[in-house]
Amino acid sequence: MRYSQVFSKSSKSHPADAESVNAHYLIQGSFVHQEMAGVYTWLPLGLRTLRKVENIIREEMDAIGGQETRMSSLQPKEAWLKTGRWDDTDILFKIPSQTGKEYALGPSHEEIATPLVQDYLISYKDLPVSVYQIATKFRDELRAKSGVMRGREFGMKDMYSFHTTQDDLDRYYERVKQAYLKVFARCGVDVKVTLASGGIFSKKLSHEFQIITPAGEDLLIACPKCIYAENTEVATKKAGEACPNCGTELIETKGVEAANIFDLGTRYTDDFGFKITDEKGEHLPIVMGCYGIGTTRLVGAIVEASHDDKGIIWPKNVAPFAVHIVVLGSKDEAVQATTNAAADKLYAELMAAGVEVLIDDRTGLSAGEKFADADLLGMPVRVVVSEKSLKNDAFEVKLRSSAEAMMVPVAEGVAQIKALI
Amino acid sequence: MRYSQVFSKSSKSHPADAESVNAHYLIQGSFVHQEMAGVYTWLPLGLRTLRKVENIIREEMDAIGGQETRMSSLQPKEAWLKTGRWDDTDILFKIPSQTGKEYALGPSHEEIATPLVQDYLISYKDLPVSVYQIATKFRDELRAKSGVMRGREFGMKDMYSFHTTQDDLDRYYERVKQAYLKVFARCGVDVKVTLASGGIFSKKLSHEFQIITPAGEDLLIACPKCIYAENTEVATKKAGEACPNCGTELIETKGVEAANIFDLGTRYTDDFGFKITDEKGEHLPIVMGCYGIGTTRLVGAIVEASHDDKGIIWPKNVAPFAVHIVVLGSKDEAVQATTNAAADKLYAELMAAGVEVLIDDRTGLSAGEKFADADLLGMPVRVVVSEKSLKNDAFEVKLRSSAEAMMVPVAEGVAQIKALI
Repeated sequence: MRYSQVFSKSSKSHPADAESVNAHYLIQGSFVHQEMAGVYTWLPLGLRTLRKVENIIREEMDAIGGQETRMSSLQPKEAWLKTGRWDDTDILFKIPSQTGKEYALGPSHEEIATPLVQDYLISYKDLPVSVYQIATKFRDELRAKSGVMRGREFGMKDMYSFHTTQDDLDRYYERVKQAYLKVFARCGVDVKVTLASGGIFSKKLSHEFQIITPAGEDLLIACPKCIYAENTEVATKKAGEACPNCGTELIETKGVEAANIFDLGTRYTDDFGFKITDEKGEHLPIVMGCYGIGTTRLVGAIVEASHDDKGIIWPKNVAPFAVHIVVLGSKDEAVQATTNAAADKLYAELMAAGVEVLIDDRTGLSAGEKFADADLLGMPVRVVVSEKSLKNDAFEVKLRSSAEAMMVPVAEGVAQIKALI
Repeated sequence: MRYSQVFSKSSKSHPADAESVNAHYLIQGSFVHQEMAGVYTWLPLGLRTLRKVENIIREEMDAIGGQETRMSSLQPKEAWLKTGRWDDTDILFKIPSQTGKEYALGPSHEEIATPLVQDYLISYKDLPVSVYQIATKFRDELRAKSGVMRGREFGMKDMYSFHTTQDDLDRYYERVKQAYLKVFARCGVDVKVTLASGGIFSKKLSHEFQIITPAGEDLLIACPKCIYAENTEVATKKAGEACPNCGTELIETKGVEAANIFDLGTRYTDDFGFKITDEKGEHLPIVMGCYGIGTTRLVGAIVEASHDDKGIIWPKNVAPFAVHIVVLGSKDEAVQATTNAAADKLYAELMAAGVEVLIDDRTGLSAGEKFADADLLGMPVRVVVSEKSLKNDAFEVKLRSSAEAMMVPVAEGVAQIKALI
């Protein structure tokens, strides 16, 4: 993509009201645009990352038998009355219609998913079933905060599984946990899993996935080696004690909750009278699990976990582009033409080799301004094409995560850059 | 995909309240699930088609320089007051919040796109700009009707372009028109383009894209050869007259509107004070175009245009799967095992060859029931694996669009089936 043609370029100054690192960099780099408090439009660069995150999640949910759907955001009031959540849920947007009806605007989809699966199930042999979607959610938060981390409108992957026995749910719950660990590993973040503190599901199992970052809102006692962690609010261990999983010394650290999984038991299936008849003619209760990953929140958490004082350092699987070519300017027209031609050739060749490339082909900017943008935008590999580099018949190649640049011969450019990705 | 494992299988009976062909087949085949009047959940099979339609549109919009975003559904009331549409738009859902604010739930995105692009534009040199999204829209229709064709919640690709001159807009408008023709050609439907009847944009250019189907809601005078058509409501020609484009005799036919494009002039840019300074220091007004394709509506229109009395006939680029393998049953366990093994082998080999395959591996159903489902679900190629076919060391292969089946030797199965796709 030619940066000169992207309508939403980075801003030179920090957004005045950015109260968190992710808001600061995502807004300044024009990954997102704030429409209102807690409501964002995803711009071309940000959307590329968000869609990569979504695709990673999609692949991992498909791999454990999740069936993708796209459930409606408008939800019938009747279903919410049935579960008792219409009057109980203060973050529920209730939409009046000119037809005289009222709708719920989905903050989550138990009220859709439960009767949906119920509608199609004929036999206990059809279970277990796991359905999911990657979609927009709405929550009437009193206070939106932390950039894209807690919004009134946000992206989420929510999955619901249905089982005839607790054992079967337990097994699937564990498979989802493992799939989530793969998602976070692919997204390039360090995650710990805590046994959650309870709430309305207090008797049932629930886990939170915490992305480790100094900016995290939750204080954890965590193992630096394995995924074990406890939220200090309910911790049974202290820093310095041995990890019950692997024996390593536990430390205190901070995390951002990016996902959670719940054993819902029959909380919702009972409300909908969702039972099924087994081979002996007995009516079996259906036990249910639900599993959420905040997709837009995860993008924010990645930024919180992976940045420095100059900008974002995107992990490679979720970077908007793998390579950022910086074309430097020259006052000499002939030199500029040569530089541009070399940069365009590299751009075309990398793309032909299947590499995703952003080329900063803007004119009239200093090298310093372009380098600052490359750092802010945070693509994994930066390639500088300039009069100076071409004099040495080379490109200057630097990883965003490293301070050191290296010179790569022009003839080996594509191969060596590709090897870095 | 193994049909035995899809939670949302086809129903044996037509939905009682399906008032249109698309609702009838999409619901009976479990492509969609109706949540309420005009509100649908997209099920695994339907979502596959919807995402293919979305990707075709995405590719064609990217090809004409469209920049993809994901704009917020929650929109500020202030923007709608600015354009005068807050009180004027009876289909606008207005959402009260516990914060005391009210939001608009986006039926379209002029109120987001216009100030969004304005926020980033620095120079007249940055224009033209074209931004789009593929997202869910909400309209508080008094009466939802025609299945997925006119819903309260629906999918749409909406694009907005911004230009410094009318000429530049006109050129881009024509490029979008050509891109839309490519979209519809790739979706396998016959489309005509009518000059629209006006409305609030009456002085400005607007075109509708009509998919030709006997079930269409609009009566057209159309050219059977080229894309020319007129809506009879405003027609200047009669059936039998010569097409002004190509001279062919015009006929009367019916169409479903699946897309439209508008020259909006400065209707919205004026409201937001969106002007830009040219090289002479003059403040240029910005002219704007908007371009919509109903994505969920297009899926419905495809069904309306491509079906018979047994079910859907998916055009190949938008079929959920290219191939539907029907595994027939046998009372003889050994025969059944041989049949299953041959079917599973074909299934694995086709998938390894990059072919998308649905395999109906359900047990306990008759051949007639399975054939009826294959016709209803409408994948382009049906392959029957049975004791009878395997006795001839062959598969029975039939196109959904054809009545004749042919026998394909097992050894040539993958190659010959692939050649049909």
